Amino acid sequence: MTERPQHGSARPGGRTARTRAAVLAAALHELDETGFAGLTLDKLAARSGVHVSTIRRRWRSVEGVVVDLMAQHSKTIATPDSGEFRQDLYELAEAIAGFHAQPRSRNLVEAMVAAAAYDPHIADLVRGAFIARTEVVTALVHRAVDRGEVPPGTDAYEVIAALSAPFYYRLLIMRGSIDERLVRASAEAAYRAARGGVFGGEGAGG
Amino acid sequence: MTERPQHGSARPGGRTARTRAAVLAAALHELDETGFAGLTLDKLAARSGVHVSTIRRRWRSVEGVVVDLMAQHSKTIATPDSGEFRQDLYELAEAIAGFHAQPRSRNLVEAMVAAAAYDPHIADLVRGAFIARTEVVTALVHRAVDRGEVPPGTDAYEVIAALSAPFYYRLLIMRGSIDERLVRASAEAAYRAARGGVFGGEGAGG
Repeated sequence: MTERPQHGSARPGGRTARTRAAVLAAALHELDETGFAGLTLDKLAARSGVHVSTIRRRWRSVEGVVVDLMAQHSKTIATPDSGEFRQDLYELAEAIAGFHAQPRSRNLVEAMVAAAAYDPHIADLVRGAFIARTEVVTALVHRAVDRGEVPPGTDAYEVIAALSAPFYYRLLIMRGSIDERLVRASAEAAYRAARGGVFGGEGAGG
Repeated sequence: MTERPQHGSARPGGRTARTRAAVLAAALHELDETGFAGLTLDKLAARSGVHVSTIRRRWRSVEGVVVDLMAQHSKTIATPDSGEFRQDLYELAEAIAGFHAQPRSRNLVEAMVAAAAYDPHIADLVRGAFIARTEVVTALVHRAVDRGEVPPGTDAYEVIAALSAPFYYRLLIMRGSIDERLVRASAEAAYRAARGGVFGGEGAGG
């Protein structure tokens, strides 16, 4: 199969990659300084040195840049592999909490969700980014199934969603900050439910 | 204490109440027809017959109207009282799912969260609306404590947040629709965690 490289993905490390790095770095700075509400393509262009028409061609909008930034950023969360399911869930919860403890990450999430409300294209990007992110992390559930810690047939996506959901609820709905208590409760609730077959598997049917 | 009635809350059933009803009904229609992205104060004025300056004075913005509508709407979810904690949680999860099954409710939530990202005043309104809403529903947790079904000292807000969070995660982050499986898993996970003292109380400490 000879496919034409997707626009913007050609030549890793080359000019395209440098352009992306510059624009995402500029977005990060702007989000830190003024938050999402003040972000414009012109500001991104001025700070990154990339022409505004190039930014618009590649990302369509400020929101497109933000989702790309979020996708890149969330890759910095490693998938725990402690050898124990409960410990893995606690470590993942800690990592999610640590990620959202940075105001810039919180701004990013807010910006993404807000943008998705106005633009179905952005909504698809958000969905894709979170599905891709979740898929990576489900490895810890599959390992737990292999070790016999959770029932075979457990839906790994549901486990990760159950663990993650309380953080977004706290941030976006209750508008509060994330604390250690939320970390522990989210991990422990997901652990007990998964062990008990709440997310499918042999113990299911509650 | 003689307090001046809060602006806009005077004379229930009178002109102020009729104005509010007309504007909220207009917002509901517009959200059903075109979603939040197309909502403007002018459209609300045209449909409700209320002057745009009156709407702006009372609600400040389209977002202010939407949060008011959400607060009013969420009151239609009753607090279950079946005599059994698990059943109460299932019924509440069903009610939340039923609420969000309406496209208008989904639009409302999207609109609120988006607006909160851009305006700290709206963020406070959202927070206040959800805290007030949660407070009502915590009655079912207090009854479960009284019946000895969950440990004394259980944080009722955390139980309701744990039950609710997966719905908002599904809607806002994973951009999917709510299904029966999510209803069951959310209720059951919250039930087991609360019973086990995950949300404080005697069994706490994980």
